[in-house]
Formats: sequence, C-alpha cells, structure tokens
Amino acid sequence: MDVEQFRQAGYAAIDRICDYYISLDAKPVSSSVQPGYLAPLLPTAPPDEGEDFATIAADYDRLIQPGLTHWQHPSFFAYFPTSSSFEGILGDLYATAVPNPGFNWSCSPACTELEAIVMDWSAQLLGLGSAFHNAAGVGGGALQTTASDSALIATVAARERFLAAAPVKLDDLVLYVTTQTHSLGLKAGRVLGLRVRALEVCHEDRYSLRGDVLRQALEEDKAAGRHPFMLIATVGSTSSGAVDNLPEIEAVLKEHTEVWLHVDAAWAGIALCCPEMRTALFLDTINAAADSFCTNFHKWGLVNFDASTLWVRDRKSLTSALDITPPFLRTAHGDAGTVTDYRNWHLALGRRFRALKVWFVLRGFGVEGFRKHIRQGIALNAMFGALLKESDILALITPPWLALTVFRLAPPHLGLDAAALNQLNAAFFARLAVRPDLAITQTVLNGVFCVRFAVGAARTTEAHVRAAFDAIVEEARAALVLWESIA
Amino acid sequence: MDVEQFRQAGYAAIDRICDYYISLDAKPVSSSVQPGYLAPLLPTAPPDEGEDFATIAADYDRLIQPGLTHWQHPSFFAYFPTSSSFEGILGDLYATAVPNPGFNWSCSPACTELEAIVMDWSAQLLGLGSAFHNAAGVGGGALQTTASDSALIATVAARERFLAAAPVKLDDLVLYVTTQTHSLGLKAGRVLGLRVRALEVCHEDRYSLRGDVLRQALEEDKAAGRHPFMLIATVGSTSSGAVDNLPEIEAVLKEHTEVWLHVDAAWAGIALCCPEMRTALFLDTINAAADSFCTNFHKWGLVNFDASTLWVRDRKSLTSALDITPPFLRTAHGDAGTVTDYRNWHLALGRRFRALKVWFVLRGFGVEGFRKHIRQGIALNAMFGALLKESDILALITPPWLALTVFRLAPPHLGLDAAALNQLNAAFFARLAVRPDLAITQTVLNGVFCVRFAVGAARTTEAHVRAAFDAIVEEARAALVLWESIA
Repeated sequence: MDVEQFRQAGYAAIDRICDYYISLDAKPVSSSVQPGYLAPLLPTAPPDEGEDFATIAADYDRLIQPGLTHWQHPSFFAYFPTSSSFEGILGDLYATAVPNPGFNWSCSPACTELEAIVMDWSAQLLGLGSAFHNAAGVGGGALQTTASDSALIATVAARERFLAAAPVKLDDLVLYVTTQTHSLGLKAGRVLGLRVRALEVCHEDRYSLRGDVLRQALEEDKAAGRHPFMLIATVGSTSSGAVDNLPEIEAVLKEHTEVWLHVDAAWAGIALCCPEMRTALFLDTINAAADSFCTNFHKWGLVNFDASTLWVRDRKSLTSALDITPPFLRTAHGDAGTVTDYRNWHLALGRRFRALKVWFVLRGFGVEGFRKHIRQGIALNAMFGALLKESDILALITPPWLALTVFRLAPPHLGLDAAALNQLNAAFFARLAVRPDLAITQTVLNGVFCVRFAVGAARTTEAHVRAAFDAIVEEARAALVLWESIA
Repeated sequence: MDVEQFRQAGYAAIDRICDYYISLDAKPVSSSVQPGYLAPLLPTAPPDEGEDFATIAADYDRLIQPGLTHWQHPSFFAYFPTSSSFEGILGDLYATAVPNPGFNWSCSPACTELEAIVMDWSAQLLGLGSAFHNAAGVGGGALQTTASDSALIATVAARERFLAAAPVKLDDLVLYVTTQTHSLGLKAGRVLGLRVRALEVCHEDRYSLRGDVLRQALEEDKAAGRHPFMLIATVGSTSSGAVDNLPEIEAVLKEHTEVWLHVDAAWAGIALCCPEMRTALFLDTINAAADSFCTNFHKWGLVNFDASTLWVRDRKSLTSALDITPPFLRTAHGDAGTVTDYRNWHLALGRRFRALKVWFVLRGFGVEGFRKHIRQGIALNAMFGALLKESDILALITPPWLALTVFRLAPPHLGLDAAALNQLNAAFFARLAVRPDLAITQTVLNGVFCVRFAVGAARTTEAHVRAAFDAIVEEARAALVLWESIA
C-alpha cells in the first residue's frame, strides 16, 4: 500500500467509524454469533499474494463486525464502562503512526516526557497529592496496560521492599486481599507463586474491609511465622462498588509499617475528579498512607483501552525492583541519571505511546467536561436506583453507589428460601443475558446471586436507562410467571 | 467532539500521517531535544475547559514531533527494526474505534476468534508445526505485548509445571539463560523473585549456548540441591544475532525432561517465513522440542507495535497456571468449555484487539510480500557486510547474519591493546550517536565494545545503507585522527 492508497483507505476508515457511531444505538448490544463462527468463513492459511485493502475492509464489515459486542453502546450496562471518546481514537491513531518501543527516554523523548506530564495532570485531576507527582521527583506515576498489570507491578515492588529489609523465604510471604478484591489480587499471587490470604468482609459492612479483621489476620500470620508484606485494598469493588475502610486500615498499618498498601480503584477512582466524591472515596487516606494507587482511565475515564494509571510514593521502589540495564540498552542520558527510563517502571521492556490519548482526552474535555461525564454517570445510576426502589419484585442488594447498582429479583409473596431465590435469579439473569437490546452481567455476593447494572458509556441517556429498566422488569415478570407455573 | 468534528479531525490526521511518511526521509533520524524539554512548554495542570482539536493537533506538531525519534526512518539502524506498515496503522485504527477489554470470548467473540486464526496463520507462515496450532486444540498461541511479556508468561507456566510435579521451595528453583540472553531473562527472574543462572558462551561459538555447558550446569545445580526448571534459549540474540545450539540443547534436555525449553526469537524468528532460513534457525528442533516459542511481529514483521506472538505446546500449561475465574467473569460459554478465554493465556485480565492489525498485514502483504520484505533486509545487510569487509580500518566481530552486522574500528597500524581499542571504539561510537542522518547503537560482547548495524525498516534502500556506511567511515576516520593527535 503506498501513501495515496493509505490516504484513501484512511479516509474510508474514518467514514466507517463515523457510520458506526451514528448507527450504534440501533445495533444489538451483544454479538449473537456462536462459538467457532469465524474459522469456517476464513481460509486456513494466509494468502500467498497481497490483497486489496478494499477487499480486506469489506471482510471486516462482513465477518468481524457481527462478532463484536459493542462496549460503547449506550445500552451497555455490563461489567464496567469502557467509555471511549473520539479524542481517544485520534490519540491511538497518532501514536500508532509513529510506533516505537519507548523503553528508554532516548527511544523517543516526547513519549517519556509527555507520559510524565499527563500522569501529573491526571494526579491533579483526581486530587492526588504532590507525593505522587513526577515533577516532585520522589514518587511518580506511569501508564500501564490494566489494573491487573498495575497490581502485579506494585506487588513485585512490595515484595522487593520487604525482602530488602527482611530476607525471608518466598514461601513464607503472604499477600492480603479480601474476598471481594478483584481477581487481580489472586492473579498477582498466582503469577508470583506467592501465598494469598483473602480477608473476610460482610454484608453489614457493605463488603468493606474493616481494621479489626486486618489486625487479627496480621497477628495470626506473624504468630505462625508467616510474613504479610502487602495489602491490596479496594476503592470501588467490581461486584458491588465496596470501599475498604481505609482510615481503619491506615491506623492498623501504622503498627505494621512493613506492609505495603496498594489501593486498587480501577473503576471508581476516576470519580475522584469530582471534589464532592473525595471524602467517600477516602482521598485523604490515599494521599497519607497508600504506597501505590491505581485507576483505569480506560474504564469510566473516556480514554480508549488501554490506559491504567499507576502511582507510587517512592519511585525507587519500582526501579530497584525492576531495573535491568544490559550494555545494548545503555544511553548517555540514562547513565547520567538525567532522564526517566520507563522500562524500569513496568514488567516488560517495550511500551506503547499511550500518553498521547490521555493528553488528547484531558485537553479535549477539560476538567469540567470530564467531571460532567462522571456526574452524568452518577446521576443516571441514581435514577435507575430510584426506579428500582419503586418495584415490588426487585430489591437492592447494596444502595446505588457511583455508577453501579446491584439488585436481584426478590418477590416477597413467594416466600422463597435462599437457594430457591438464587435459582430464580439465575433464571432471571439468563433471560436478561440473551436480550439484544442491553448488556448486563451478574455476580455472587457472599453466596447471593445478584445482577449488576453499571452505567458510564459516553452516549447513555435517561431514555436508555429507562428502557433498560423496563426490559429488566419485563424479564423479571416473565421469570416469575415461569417459576410459578412449574412450582 | 461530535461525529462531524471527528470526521474532519480524522481526515486531517490521515493527511498528517501521509505528510509524515512523504517527508520522513528528509527528517533527522533522532530527536535532538534535551531532557526536560517538554515540561516548560506545557501547563502544569489540565485545562478547565475543553479545547478545540485543531489547537491540540497543532501542539502535537509543534511540541511532540520534535521530541520523536523516527523508528520507521529508512536510516534507522539502531536496536532492532520497528518495521510498521500502513496496514498495521489501519488495524490499530479499526481496533481502537471499537475498544473492549477482550478478556473473555464473550467480551467480543470476533476478537478471540480472529486472534486464534491469525496465530495459526502466523504459525504456518513461520513453519511452526501443528503442535502449536490453535486449531489442533492441544497447544496454541496468543498475542502478547512484548517478548519480555511472553518470556515472563512462559516462565510462570514452566514454574507451575515443575512445582506440580515436584513441590520444592521457590528459593531453590533456577532459571537458565546465557550471558547473551536478552534482558528479558534476567527481568523474568527479577519479577518472579527467582534465581537466574547465566550460562557462559564464547566468541569461538559465535556466542551460542552449547550442549555440554548446559549439561554441566544441570549436573552442578542438581548436585547442590537446586532445581533448574527452565532454559530460555535464543534464536537471534540482541547483541550479535547468536543462535543457541538447539539440537545439542534438545539432546541434553532429553535427559532432563522437567526443564521447560522456551525459545526466544523475538527479532530473528520472523525470518522463519523464508524456507531457505529454516535450517540455520533450527526450525526442526523448535518444532520437536520447544515448550514455548516467541517472536515479535512488531520488530521485523511489519505489524505496528505491539504484537508479540507466543506459542505453547500445551495450552493447559498456561491455563492451569493463570486461570482465575471469579463469579463476575463467568459466562455460559466459558463454563461449558466451548470457547477460549484469553485472559487465562496472559498475565493481565483485559487485552487489546491486536489480531486485527496482524490480519490486515498478512492479507495486505501476502506470504510472498512478507518474505520479500525479510529477504530485502537480509540482502541489504549482506551488502553492508560486503562494504565493511573492504575497509582497512573497520572489522567484523561476527559475520553479517540476517539483518544485523556487528563491527568495530580496528586499525591494524596502531597496534592497540584491548583496553585502548575499547576506548577508541567508545569515542568512535560517541561520534556516530550524535549524527542526525542515521541512528545506530552499541553493545559489548564478552568485554569487546562493538557497534551494531540493524536493518529492516520498510523504506530502507541500498542508497540508505551506502550513505550510512559512508557516514560510519567518515566518523571512523575522524575518530582515528583525533586519537592519533592526542596519543
């Protein structure tokens, strides 16, 4: 493909993206293809001769589009939002046009310098204090792929800090999470081969980790000769939006300063951009006590996947854990220590130029535009919660919070026991899961099968939320009718 | 930004990319900005109100472009090529327009299914046998970010396979690399907190690991109660393109079947697409004996960064090491085992839709177009090697091989000792490093300071290689004149 062919194919791609977003609302939210749909439609080997891009693009429309689930659809309420933006698309386009592996400052100075700056902009947007700012030169932040990646990096840094002070056996280390921590906690333990202890949380505390549970676990493990080295606390859990009690945790960890506190706010942390949310999200404690903090701009934060922001209080905790500098990677600036080489701030060597899309989004929306998007998500969720409270067959599991509502079908007139209620709700959810007009997902909270409703897509309006609620009520009634007919 | 504003900004971005590639040859290869250039040019915080994209795009030209080093420049001979393509740019553009985290098949079935297919296409392109094909259902492959990421994943799988058979202490495990293995080996050990042993290789063997060195190490470590669980062997090392002696390694590991063999061919593996290269790159042994194999299409393989292909002989070795399935990630298809959920084939949870750009590149170039690109790199490097052999002051360190030549300044008339020769070459390289008309990097091979010349950018021609050679000779002569003037 030469430059002029690229120009035509590029214009066509832009037009296709415009068409996509114009028609998005009318598409089914989820793909309805069956497993294995694609292989019979494609050759089993690449072609010998190159093909025209028009043919390839037509195949994209014909074969790939039907297999996509539309995470930007205004009626996508599953998992968490992936609220991308046109600014984010342009950022990825500009970046992929000048690809470079970005491992050293000298690979492309703009990549490293812009990343350091947008991380500071993001820190200010969220209210993170100067301890986490790159410009202050002590702590700092970098873009990672995902919150799992960020948590894994933090865990490596925490392990190395602990072992540097107390060289114990790896098999005696313990990583703390809670039973509501995202799978990133268990996965970090699995990847690193370390023991993980999931601390109990309960419904009465809204699934939030309390200080006394942590204190007791620390005392038990230490008495047994084990070494808890890190707690992954959560601000806004996946299942229910739970916020661990950071002030209580801070008080306990003051007596156990060797324990690294990582705060995973993958989804909810973005809401820190709104000053009115900062108390409930324990910003002061994060600023005072977190060793590391993560939130994902690619969830609720309008930046196209992937853009996970990870900050640490002490940048040396990363570089002393991760720095490997073979001769072929040495540079004059790196040797002089006058630049940041981001290869030592993450697990791999190469890294993409993700800073550009963050920069485009923060400038394109501005702080006020960004806040408006977050506040709209919170308002839409509150509206959904209000509709739900009026229902006589649906019940909230936890109060609507941020942009997430967890609920279930709970018909008082049937007098079902816990197991039967779970079965009824599984049947109810199965009906919701196959609807083409919305996407929604489930969870299990301490044995209780629930449905999660997560808003936050950039194009979602009150009408979409209301239509989703109506669909949910319709399926709830149908599930009840079927249940009673076979009871 | 609304759809029509995006259409205009998108067209402008495509035009900007066309202009960039049209003018690329005339630009300096490397950025000449100084550390800290960008911060004084930008505000210290994001703007309160959103800005017009035209302003943002103009700032990209004014502030970011000067800080870029152009890895696609035809005179970029540093590190390894990052040989992107217009097809790759379009693949990233299409993918970022429909962002989704891709962790489950059901996130967007097309993402998982196309990835499985392009991995099989790529396996066939490179000659990998059906043991590594997804379609065969036993082994298989997935796209990862980088070769470091791939090696780390393989190391986790290797560790878990070993521990499942022999539950020993983590502190007693040993990961084998060689002194010429890329930093990915040491970094995997660092990340996982495991002991790494770097086996010696020598100049006489062209820095290739021999079987007897491996055998002796295994016997020593086992006698000392340690447990070697993995060898990261290299096909095409970073410093010199060395290829470990896989047939000898295979013979040794037949007596140590618990040792996982990962073959890292991050750069050189792409050359397996040419049948005439397969014997020298030990394809038969890879097919017969490797537990995992990695090469990066984002290096020499025309796919825009990032696209690292990792294959394993036994997919269960990945999934049993990495599967975490909390309730909120369960799906009907996943529970039924009828689909692949790629979250269990890598370290994080979410993943980008990278398969699209690989598909676009393989279709756009075809097998023959792809081979032509690789053969062109090999031919250009051979031409550079031939020029170098005629020089009376430059000397090859290893024979030109694939698309890499390692050489140094070695003036016979001065009679310098090893230390002086290193100093002379460091001075010579320092002159090359600041030239605006080419980019080139250095290495140290068993104490010998060398210069690396790596071709492979899509736009490099004979004229660029010849100009680079002339520049190298010019700086070599200047370095010699200066050396003799102060001797």
